[in-house]
Amino acid sequence: MLEKIAPEQIKNCTKNELNVLCDEIRNTIYTTVSKCGGHLASNLGSVESIVALFYVFDFPKDKIIFDVGHQCYPYKLLSGRLDRFSTLRQSGGISGFPKRNESIYDCYDTGHAGTSVSAAIGLSKAAELLGEERNVIAYIGDGSFNNGLVYEALSSLKILNSNILIILNDNGMSISPTVGGMYDIISEIKNSGSAENIKLLESFGLSYMGVKNGNDLEEMIDAVSEAKERLKSGSVLLHIATKKGKGYEFSEENPTNTHGVPPVGAPKQKEYSEVLGETLCDLAKEDKGVTVVSAAMKEALGLADFFVQYPERAFDVGICEENASVLCAAMAAGGLKPYYAIYSTFLQRAFDEIIHDVCAQDMPVTFCIDRAGISGADGETHQGVFDLSYLSLIPNLAIASPKDTEEFRKMLVFSKDFKHPLAIRYPRAGRVVFTEGEGKEIELGKWEYLHRGNKNKATLIATGERCMIIAMKILQNLQKEGLDCDIVNARFVKPLDETLLNTLSSEYVITMEDNVAFGGFGALVSQYLLQNDKACKIKTFAYRDEFIPQGSVSELQAEYGVSCKEIESYLKSILA
Amino acid sequence: MLEKIAPEQIKNCTKNELNVLCDEIRNTIYTTVSKCGGHLASNLGSVESIVALFYVFDFPKDKIIFDVGHQCYPYKLLSGRLDRFSTLRQSGGISGFPKRNESIYDCYDTGHAGTSVSAAIGLSKAAELLGEERNVIAYIGDGSFNNGLVYEALSSLKILNSNILIILNDNGMSISPTVGGMYDIISEIKNSGSAENIKLLESFGLSYMGVKNGNDLEEMIDAVSEAKERLKSGSVLLHIATKKGKGYEFSEENPTNTHGVPPVGAPKQKEYSEVLGETLCDLAKEDKGVTVVSAAMKEALGLADFFVQYPERAFDVGICEENASVLCAAMAAGGLKPYYAIYSTFLQRAFDEIIHDVCAQDMPVTFCIDRAGISGADGETHQGVFDLSYLSLIPNLAIASPKDTEEFRKMLVFSKDFKHPLAIRYPRAGRVVFTEGEGKEIELGKWEYLHRGNKNKATLIATGERCMIIAMKILQNLQKEGLDCDIVNARFVKPLDETLLNTLSSEYVITMEDNVAFGGFGALVSQYLLQNDKACKIKTFAYRDEFIPQGSVSELQAEYGVSCKEIESYLKSILA
Repeated sequence: MLEKIAPEQIKNCTKNELNVLCDEIRNTIYTTVSKCGGHLASNLGSVESIVALFYVFDFPKDKIIFDVGHQCYPYKLLSGRLDRFSTLRQSGGISGFPKRNESIYDCYDTGHAGTSVSAAIGLSKAAELLGEERNVIAYIGDGSFNNGLVYEALSSLKILNSNILIILNDNGMSISPTVGGMYDIISEIKNSGSAENIKLLESFGLSYMGVKNGNDLEEMIDAVSEAKERLKSGSVLLHIATKKGKGYEFSEENPTNTHGVPPVGAPKQKEYSEVLGETLCDLAKEDKGVTVVSAAMKEALGLADFFVQYPERAFDVGICEENASVLCAAMAAGGLKPYYAIYSTFLQRAFDEIIHDVCAQDMPVTFCIDRAGISGADGETHQGVFDLSYLSLIPNLAIASPKDTEEFRKMLVFSKDFKHPLAIRYPRAGRVVFTEGEGKEIELGKWEYLHRGNKNKATLIATGERCMIIAMKILQNLQKEGLDCDIVNARFVKPLDETLLNTLSSEYVITMEDNVAFGGFGALVSQYLLQNDKACKIKTFAYRDEFIPQGSVSELQAEYGVSCKEIESYLKSILA
Repeated sequence: MLEKIAPEQIKNCTKNELNVLCDEIRNTIYTTVSKCGGHLASNLGSVESIVALFYVFDFPKDKIIFDVGHQCYPYKLLSGRLDRFSTLRQSGGISGFPKRNESIYDCYDTGHAGTSVSAAIGLSKAAELLGEERNVIAYIGDGSFNNGLVYEALSSLKILNSNILIILNDNGMSISPTVGGMYDIISEIKNSGSAENIKLLESFGLSYMGVKNGNDLEEMIDAVSEAKERLKSGSVLLHIATKKGKGYEFSEENPTNTHGVPPVGAPKQKEYSEVLGETLCDLAKEDKGVTVVSAAMKEALGLADFFVQYPERAFDVGICEENASVLCAAMAAGGLKPYYAIYSTFLQRAFDEIIHDVCAQDMPVTFCIDRAGISGADGETHQGVFDLSYLSLIPNLAIASPKDTEEFRKMLVFSKDFKHPLAIRYPRAGRVVFTEGEGKEIELGKWEYLHRGNKNKATLIATGERCMIIAMKILQNLQKEGLDCDIVNARFVKPLDETLLNTLSSEYVITMEDNVAFGGFGALVSQYLLQNDKACKIKTFAYRDEFIPQGSVSELQAEYGVSCKEIESYLKSILA
C-alpha cells in the first residue's frame, strides 16, 4: 500500500487498510534504519498518530512541526519520500530531521529541543495576519516538554492569541527516561487523570484531551478528529501515551539503546565518552567534591557507570541545558568541582549562562564537549563546528582539545585542580593513539611538537585528533618526497602557547582545525602573530562560512575546507 | 539607625525600630539613585521583605541570590555597604547588581533573568554534599518568573532534592507590566487564592505560602519565620505582593518610567531607539507583513508607539528571549517580516535559536540590537561587547553597524526588502550626525570613505558611531600636524567589503570596533587580508580579553583597548 498511496488518498482508506499501512511503515523504518542508522525507537512509536493526522488534516496546507524531529520518519514516508528513503542520513540523501528544502510537506526545520510550540504559534500568527486558513500542529515528545523554551512558548499563547494543536507524544522517555517536576505533572495526568494538573495545563489557554493508547489507530483517529473540531475555538493539547520502539520487542525493551542506532555491522571504535566515564569515576573516588551534570544524555556521554557508582553526585536534569549550566556555576560557587558533559551543538543553548554565570564569576566548571567538529549523518542542526569560536570570545575560559583519548584522560586529570572555567572538546570516536610527541605533562596553554623538521621553513599547527591525523599523514607524504616541516599539537586553543609562537622561526605558519574559520583557532593564531609583528606568512585551514549538511565526516571535512590533499599540495608548493 | 546598625543586630530591633530602618533605607535609595542613576522602583518595593529576611535568617552564613539584582539595594545597605553606597554604579564604586567581589554577603553574581532558582539549588546541593548547614534563598520578581530557565530549575528541584526558599516578589511588573500565561497562573493565586494553581506550584515539590501585603513589615516577618520552619522539611515558595516604587508617589504611579532612572540633570540625547520606533512605524504602514517582537523591553527600545499604532502586529512576550527568537523565525517562515528588538547582552540568551531557527533556515528576521558595545554603569553583566563575535561566526547572517542615527534609519529601510537574516547593532545614544561620507545608498556589504587622504600610507577602518567619532577626531589631530590618512566607515561587519579591501593600496590597515578583539571585526578583516595575500601591515583596536566592569563609556573604551590617544600615536608613528 505504502508504495502506491498519495498523501491525499489516506483519508479514503478503510481502517483495515490504514492498519496495513502502519505495518508497512514500521517495516520500512526498521529495515532502513538497520542499514543506514538513525532514530529507531521514537519513530516506531509515532506511526499510528501520524497516520491519524494524515487521515484528519490536509497536509501540506495544514502545517506540522516535529519537535527535534526524532518522530518524523512516518511523516516522511507518507508525504512522498518512500522512494528516496533508502538514502536516509547519507550524503545528498533524505535527512533524519524535517527539512524545508526536502519537501513542501516540511514547513519548519528542527533538530534541537523545545522549538515546536513557539514555531507553531509563529506560523499560526503569520497565517492569521496574511488571511490564510490553515491548522498548525506542534508534535512534541515528553522529553522536549521539559525544556524551558516550551514554557516560554506556552506562556505566550494568550499573548499571541493564535490557535494551535499541540500533540504531546508521551512515551516516558527522552533519550534517557524522562525526569523532572514538569514530567511528574504530565505523568500524573497519564496515570490517574489528575484534574488539578489538567487545570494547570488549561490555565495556559489550552483545551486538554488525553488518549490512553496512542498506538491504537482508531482511538487516535477519533481523538485527532475531535481535536480538529476544538481547534476552531482555541488551542488544544492532545496528550497521547505511546510505546517507544512499538512493534519491535527488542526496541520496546531497550528504548535508550535503540533511540539512535548505528547501521548493522558498523565498526566499534574506542570512544572519548568511555574515557570520560572511566576518568571521572577515578577523579570522584579521589575527591568528594567532584559532581557530574548531564542534560538527558548520560548514556551517550559515557556516564552511565558514574550515575550508578556516585548517584548522590550525578544529576541528569533532562533536556535543560541552561539550568545545567547555572547549577554547575552555583555548585562551584559552593565549593564543589562540577563537570558538565554535553554535545557541542546543544551547548549553544547555554551560551549566555557560560558567559554570565560560569565565566564572569570565574568558576571552576569543566565543560566536557562531545561530538565536537563535524558530526556527520545528523546534518546542519547537529554539527559541532562553532564551539571553538563561540567559546574563545569569552574571557576567563580555557579551551583544550586533545590529540587522542590518552591525552584526553590527562586533560581531565589536569582539570581536577584547575581553578577556572575549562572546556575540553573532542569528537565521538578515537581512532589512533599517537606514539609521537614529547610526553610533556599537560600545562595550561602549552603545546608540544609531534615532529621537528630540519629546515624550519614551515610549521603546521593542528588542534584535535582529526586534524592531527591529517597532519601526520601529510608529513609522511612530504617525507616520501624528501620534504619536511614542523608539526605542533595545539593542546590548548586558548590560551595560545605564546612562548612557542614567539620563538617560531618558520617562514610559514599553517593552522588546521575541525571548526569554522571565523573566530576559530586559526583566527586566534593569526591575530596573535599579527599583533606581535611576527614576520611570517600565515595560512589557516578551517570550515568556510556555510551550514554543513549531512554526509561522511571525512568527505565533509575535505569539502568544507580541511582537505588533506589541499593542505599537502599547499605545503609542497612552499617547500619545493 | 541605618548608619550604626550591624547586620547581626537587626534581629534585636523592635518592630518600631525596624520600621524606622525601612524609612531610612528608602530615603537613602531615593537620594542616591537621584544622584547616580539606577534601579529605583523595584528597590523601593523590596525594602520590608529584605529587612524581614535579615530579622529571621543569618547572613552571610545563610545565602541569598537576587534574580537579576534589581531588588538588592536594601540588602546592600544592610550588609555594610552604606558608607560606599554614594558611589553606586560609578567607576570603582558599588555595583548596581550583586557582586561576590564586593562583599562576603554576596554569594552569586546576577544580572540576567531567571538564574536565581538554579543557583539556589546548586548552592544548597553544595552545602549538603560538603556537610555545611545553611539556608539558601532565591529572591525573584514576577517578571523573571516568566523566563524558561526558571521552569527548568523548578523541574529539577526533586531531582536534586535540595531544600530552598523561593521568594516570589510579585509587583505585577517586569520593566513593562508582566504578561503571559505563567503570570496569569500566579496572578490568579494573588487575586483569588486559586487552590488549583497553588496545587500546580506544589507539584514541583514546593510548599506554597502567600503574603497579601509584602510591604507590611510585621506580616513579612511572620511569613518569613514560618517559611524558615517549613524549609526544614522541604522547599518553600513564599509569594509576596508588593508595590513597585513603594513610598514615592511618582514612582508608584510610573513604575515603568522609574524602573531604571538616569541621574537628575543628565542630558537628553537623541537615541537610536527613537529612530527605531519611528522607522518601524513607517515600514509597518507601507507593508502589512511587518511585525515587532520584544522581550519585556518595549519602552526602552523605543517601541511604545508601535505597540499603540499596530497592536495586532506587536508582541511583547515577557522575559523570554529564546521564545521571541523562534517566534520570529516561524513568522518569517509563514511569510511575515519580523523585527526582534533587544539589548545586545540579552540576545546572548537566544544564541542557539539565532543559529538553529533563524540562520540555518535563512529566514528574513531583522535583529535590532540596542545597547551594543560598552554600556557603562551596569557593569560586567550588561556590556554588549560580544555580539560582533558571536554573530559573525554564524553563516547566512549579515551584520550592519551604522555610523549615526540617520544611517541607522537607512539601514532599517534597506532591511525591509532584504531576504535573509540581518543584525543591526547600535549604542544607546546618538551623539553626532556626520556630514562627511559619500552619500551612497545602503548596499549589502558596501562601505564608504568618510575621508580620502593624499598619501595612501594608512587606512583607518572603523565600525559604529562611537569608533567613527574617534576616527574623525584622530584625523583632525593628524591634519593639524600636516599628516593624513584614509578613513573608511564599515557599514557592514559581515559581509566585508571585499572590493574595497582588494583595492586598498595602503601600507597600513588599522581597524577599530566597540567589541572584544577575539572573533570581532578586526579579526575578520585580518583573516580576509591574510588569506588573500594582501601585503599590508594590519593593526586592530578592540577590547582585550577581560570582563569589563562599570564605569563611563569613554573611559572604559580607552582603558580596555580602544583609546583615541593610543591609536593617534600609533598613526603618528607610522605616518611621521
